[in-house]
Amino acid sequence: MGDYDEALAVEQVGTGEWTARLSDAWSIGGAVNGGLLMALTAATLGHDVLDGSPEHVAPLAYSAHFLSASADGPATLRTEVIRRGRSLTTGQVSLYQEAGGRTLERLRALVGFGSLDGRAEPHLRSAPAPSIPPPERCVDSSTAPADFVASVPLLGRIDLRLDPATAGWALGTPSQEGRMQGWIRFADDRPVDANSLLFFLDALPPVAFDLGIMGWAPTLEFSGHVRAEPAPGWLQVELRTSNVAGGFMEEDATVWDGTGRLVAQSRQLAGVRIPDPS
Amino acid sequence: MGDYDEALAVEQVGTGEWTARLSDAWSIGGAVNGGLLMALTAATLGHDVLDGSPEHVAPLAYSAHFLSASADGPATLRTEVIRRGRSLTTGQVSLYQEAGGRTLERLRALVGFGSLDGRAEPHLRSAPAPSIPPPERCVDSSTAPADFVASVPLLGRIDLRLDPATAGWALGTPSQEGRMQGWIRFADDRPVDANSLLFFLDALPPVAFDLGIMGWAPTLEFSGHVRAEPAPGWLQVELRTSNVAGGFMEEDATVWDGTGRLVAQSRQLAGVRIPDPS
Repeated sequence: MGDYDEALAVEQVGTGEWTARLSDAWSIGGAVNGGLLMALTAATLGHDVLDGSPEHVAPLAYSAHFLSASADGPATLRTEVIRRGRSLTTGQVSLYQEAGGRTLERLRALVGFGSLDGRAEPHLRSAPAPSIPPPERCVDSSTAPADFVASVPLLGRIDLRLDPATAGWALGTPSQEGRMQGWIRFADDRPVDANSLLFFLDALPPVAFDLGIMGWAPTLEFSGHVRAEPAPGWLQVELRTSNVAGGFMEEDATVWDGTGRLVAQSRQLAGVRIPDPS
Repeated sequence: MGDYDEALAVEQVGTGEWTARLSDAWSIGGAVNGGLLMALTAATLGHDVLDGSPEHVAPLAYSAHFLSASADGPATLRTEVIRRGRSLTTGQVSLYQEAGGRTLERLRALVGFGSLDGRAEPHLRSAPAPSIPPPERCVDSSTAPADFVASVPLLGRIDLRLDPATAGWALGTPSQEGRMQGWIRFADDRPVDANSLLFFLDALPPVAFDLGIMGWAPTLEFSGHVRAEPAPGWLQVELRTSNVAGGFMEEDATVWDGTGRLVAQSRQLAGVRIPDPS
């Protein structure tokens, strides 16, 4: 179940009703990675969208609220196409799992689909990709301590190379800048595509690690925009946070492809356990 | 209908079903302002949330997809509480209007409500408010040309003072920095509160004006986070965009209260008509 396309496979069991299987292979500390769930829900809703709006292939705007942590096992998805427009088709998707005899909703998302043709031009301005060392001179996450890697099966699915300047947290010396950046691709070199950008927007460790806060930072709300079709190869990702207070932080992510084109960006609200200064 | 509390008034007509009246008094070029619709939908869903979760008074995370432009006249809202948790209650709300014999959905939103008590501490970091001239040395939007003010009734609802450094577009000399900032409050000095921050996050002119793009920039997707209770008085707002291409731009908004505390932030995907360089 370590194959990305397998993880996104669904079976239609009724109108707007689908089944899937979530796998621990994509988990972090027992919970299935949120980015994978975003890619899965968008891909599933996308099947309904394409059936009627064949040009609206890409999830241009994706907004999700996470309701409970997903676990290894079967899942059900419900999809609804809300509106078919000329340039955008908008829909809703929910993911459910059975747990303790109850049906629990894991996340609900609203997604606007459209075409990426013509989204590169006319081009007025875009944030340039930060200059960082090439992948072979970055910190390979597979070299992390074995017990850490074992608790994060997701690390086996990706090839993640962190800029040494923002990987100090792994050695106990976080930069305290609220920034993390590096290169990422699938471990098995599956090609990146528009839908998988939703996964890559949330595949790095929490940016709070760079502030010395090493706990889990559960996503409460996530909003991502896919702006262009990525070129094959490595993606460059930057995470930032500027506001960490009262148990919450925002995490802004930006993804460029290997040609330096900005292809996706997101902002999420995440929970974070801030050490009491006293 | 220029009173904000009147604009947010709804009547319950069934379980999760409400009626409201949208007014041209809050419109821009014929369409009702999206920020007002966000405040209205959050306030309406909030009635359902409070009835069961009395501490969850503030819309901490609000995500909306805009489906069609709202107009002066009656509207119907449908609300659903999805999940009641200890720290967050999450729900969904849609706004509909009748037009041309059809029921059209105007926007659909997912909202996470919680308490703002304890959201200020512990405080690790926050983006400081930019230093700008005081309101009395900023550009008062009510001094704009009369025909412009007449086409934007919303300007009569707010007291907006733009930093002269980012108001050059009004004189045909945009700064080209992709930034707009200033002070804002209700024109009638109604107190600001957590819910109204959703309105203020989207009450300024489009940031694209500062790039010399003077057309309407319709919001497609909006995601806002309310981070703290605002102190009474002026709010300081900053808009930025870094990525303008292929008919889309992101607009990031940050709001601080008069004490300099960051109280809300948002990111939206908006449509923008980029002049062809040829």
